[in-house]
Amino acid sequence: MMKASLSLLLVLVAGSCTFGKYIPKSGKRVPQTLSRGWGDQLIWAQTYEEGLYWARSRNKPLMVLFHLEDCPHCLALKKVFADNDNIQRILDEDFVVLNLVYETTDKHLSPDGQYVPRIIFVDPSMTVRADITGRYNNRMYAYEPEDLKLLVSNMQKAKKLLKSEL
Amino acid sequence: MMKASLSLLLVLVAGSCTFGKYIPKSGKRVPQTLSRGWGDQLIWAQTYEEGLYWARSRNKPLMVLFHLEDCPHCLALKKVFADNDNIQRILDEDFVVLNLVYETTDKHLSPDGQYVPRIIFVDPSMTVRADITGRYNNRMYAYEPEDLKLLVSNMQKAKKLLKSEL
Repeated sequence: MMKASLSLLLVLVAGSCTFGKYIPKSGKRVPQTLSRGWGDQLIWAQTYEEGLYWARSRNKPLMVLFHLEDCPHCLALKKVFADNDNIQRILDEDFVVLNLVYETTDKHLSPDGQYVPRIIFVDPSMTVRADITGRYNNRMYAYEPEDLKLLVSNMQKAKKLLKSEL
Repeated sequence: MMKASLSLLLVLVAGSCTFGKYIPKSGKRVPQTLSRGWGDQLIWAQTYEEGLYWARSRNKPLMVLFHLEDCPHCLALKKVFADNDNIQRILDEDFVVLNLVYETTDKHLSPDGQYVPRIIFVDPSMTVRADITGRYNNRMYAYEPEDLKLLVSNMQKAKKLLKSEL
């Protein structure tokens, strides 16, 4: 009898833990992450304004990554990008990072148009580094999965901060 | 010998699965969520621009929730907010939702100043519903945990869309 009551109590406790947890009619969803799979261990800014603020206050360059969740080129790049320890470490230690699936109203972030995937570096002086480009003339800020070495070299360029004019 | 090789193979496979997963020096982090605990089953907009776009295209009101992760009033409100099935269901079905830990540059979102927690409704016509207020005269858009009924009633108000003038 004692054992039965204990079981009942356990059932009640387990029941109360799940009480008050809304489940959509269409079924339970996986919570959205700010990383969206581009690096779950990185600390991502939510908005461009936030990224700029962090870049200025920490004196670190900002990397802005435009992508879409259903774009095959983005998914291919994301896989090698997230799995690359070197890129993840450099970004974690030396950069402020932001990934966006929605364009901002700031035209400086699309120097040659809006396309994905597109990676733009911004100096902590708030200057968009339009000079740091990939290998494609028609989409100068695009990277393919085989361009990771160039991306790392561009990250090193971005780390050499523009000095503010005194 | 066959068994040993198989074990070795399994070790190698297991090893390759974890290879390439960057862990920060300070230890593994929990991936950041867009919900930040305010409703893991809701689909959150990332930016105000994105929220406005969704609100217009879906003809649903936008709820913007300003908070900070280390503010006790926010944490107290978050707990009851996230656990309230009714609020979560209404938000999921009838609203576009956005939570921000960083102020935007849009002053319409801080009609009586920047403080947290603060809940502002925006009509799909892109009008900030400054008329939908809580119970505190000095912080008109603040809610305490005991104000959930008022919040639900304000959500119902926000659902009555402003008609565009024809």
